Amino acid sequence: MPAHRFRIDALQYANWSEKIFRQMRDGGIDAIHVTIAYHENFRETVLNLERWNRWFEQYPDLIVKGQWASDIDHAVETGRTAIFFGFQNPSPIEDDIGLVEIMHALGARFMQLTYNNQSLLATGCYEEHDAGITRMGRQVIREMNRVGLVVDMSHSGDRSTIEAAEISERPIAITHANPHAWHPALRNKRDDVISAVTRNGGMLGFSLYPHHLKDGSACTLESFCEMVARTAERYGAEHLGIGSDLCQNQPDSVVEWMRVGRWTKEIDYGEGSAASPGFPAMPDWFRSNRDFGNIERGLRETGLSSEETEGIMGGNWYRFFADGFRPQG
Amino acid sequence: MPAHRFRIDALQYANWSEKIFRQMRDGGIDAIHVTIAYHENFRETVLNLERWNRWFEQYPDLIVKGQWASDIDHAVETGRTAIFFGFQNPSPIEDDIGLVEIMHALGARFMQLTYNNQSLLATGCYEEHDAGITRMGRQVIREMNRVGLVVDMSHSGDRSTIEAAEISERPIAITHANPHAWHPALRNKRDDVISAVTRNGGMLGFSLYPHHLKDGSACTLESFCEMVARTAERYGAEHLGIGSDLCQNQPDSVVEWMRVGRWTKEIDYGEGSAASPGFPAMPDWFRSNRDFGNIERGLRETGLSSEETEGIMGGNWYRFFADGFRPQG
Repeated sequence: MPAHRFRIDALQYANWSEKIFRQMRDGGIDAIHVTIAYHENFRETVLNLERWNRWFEQYPDLIVKGQWASDIDHAVETGRTAIFFGFQNPSPIEDDIGLVEIMHALGARFMQLTYNNQSLLATGCYEEHDAGITRMGRQVIREMNRVGLVVDMSHSGDRSTIEAAEISERPIAITHANPHAWHPALRNKRDDVISAVTRNGGMLGFSLYPHHLKDGSACTLESFCEMVARTAERYGAEHLGIGSDLCQNQPDSVVEWMRVGRWTKEIDYGEGSAASPGFPAMPDWFRSNRDFGNIERGLRETGLSSEETEGIMGGNWYRFFADGFRPQG
Repeated sequence: MPAHRFRIDALQYANWSEKIFRQMRDGGIDAIHVTIAYHENFRETVLNLERWNRWFEQYPDLIVKGQWASDIDHAVETGRTAIFFGFQNPSPIEDDIGLVEIMHALGARFMQLTYNNQSLLATGCYEEHDAGITRMGRQVIREMNRVGLVVDMSHSGDRSTIEAAEISERPIAITHANPHAWHPALRNKRDDVISAVTRNGGMLGFSLYPHHLKDGSACTLESFCEMVARTAERYGAEHLGIGSDLCQNQPDSVVEWMRVGRWTKEIDYGEGSAASPGFPAMPDWFRSNRDFGNIERGLRETGLSSEETEGIMGGNWYRFFADGFRPQG
């Protein structure tokens, strides 16, 4: 029997439903890292975990809770998708370092140190000045390393990201962003940032969110795959994966919550604008979990080897999950 | 190699310290169910879990977190004591049934449906009228059955306890109490209560707390062991274990917290009295975890077989933990 070719997406925040869970199966998705908190505090995040527990009870044939890489194997064997939890902000741990281990016990496997703004731990990518990792940030990175909660710097400033990659004793991730050189969006990452993360064994997940794509919603599959191939040449294909940032079926009120939370009384358009405040339309070649085959085909056609393509489509995240989620020691 | 003879205590609430953890090792204790909440709400209980996490980090050679019976085997192999968590009140789940699964994921393995007073789930043993299991109580028992959180009725009223034993699809426990016929304390259990629990596969843990003992602090080892032997004849030795209720080194402010919590502004003496409001002195043959050997010797001398004695000292709890803590299905 040939080895399984994994399909893993390292970031989604869909408006979850049976329809979307079935589309994961149609698309052959073995595992997804889902966001369960943007600005939620500890208790609110626990309520989101409870909602997922109800979905696991309700759809036991489609999804299964993921805690370890072995849960992906189990999902593959039983024809389901393993769901791994993460936070896009450290708000769930509030000001309490003890909540890092508590949240890992509850299944959290990725935590961004910031979401656009300054946090207690680091500086977000929308702040004017990035003062780097804070005193508490250094302590929390050490604790995350100890328990097996992966540092994710997708929405962090450059200096904070480079420092996190150096301070962390275990590889870190940028789960969803693209190279700034391809499309100079604020959220895309410059060479020195990607280098710092991948040099230390970390991962970059390519985003399909239109604001991160050259030509936005009109970005072609060829342009996207060509960018992936160039990134593989520069940093090594083994450090790359997909982190689609798919926010399928979400109402525009959700992107407003992501951007505004409770930190301002004004509207902040983030990557959008007053003229275009909502979720942008996805490219026509990536609208749901059924479309991962398009990316795989595009990567092969751009000249990447089948080994490189398999790694980027899921094998690299599988290895990263296997190493990253276990407690240290 | 002979099979291991387990020593397991199904209830303690000591003022934990390195000294007490070392006494557990001196006494050869393989596992202890410790109380981590009396009146604490969800967030406060999580703080108590965080404190235990620090002790596990600080004393890795003495204690290890217990979640499954296999963790007791691991503790035995590595010369440590496995610590299992429980609540003496359902206050940690507040009014949210989703917290049952969350708390099980965090390690909770026993939950009393009441502590002396009426709760959202059932009636406590100090209430005048016992209306039995509530609407929410029936739902929570089913959810506890599903996830593997054991129903403990040590501080509940008779009717509530008998109903819980009948409603629960899995065996329940009275972790710490003695037969009312031996010593007619309010907290000790009448025949129909012990029968209902043990008839359905449940367990009774014998308490060493002086208010539960004939002659209190002056109770003799012989009287205690004779009572155990008579209880074994009546209900079957396989349903019996130890739940010492040892509250070693606790200041009297702690027994006041247990009794009064935040539910009254007046003093409630519980099993004590205005003349004797504090913790009673332990019998001289059971003052710490080093004294389990006295009980084992006493049980043998009272005529119990070595098989019965081994079961009561830990083997019965081991089997109960193995069956009771796993998710259903």
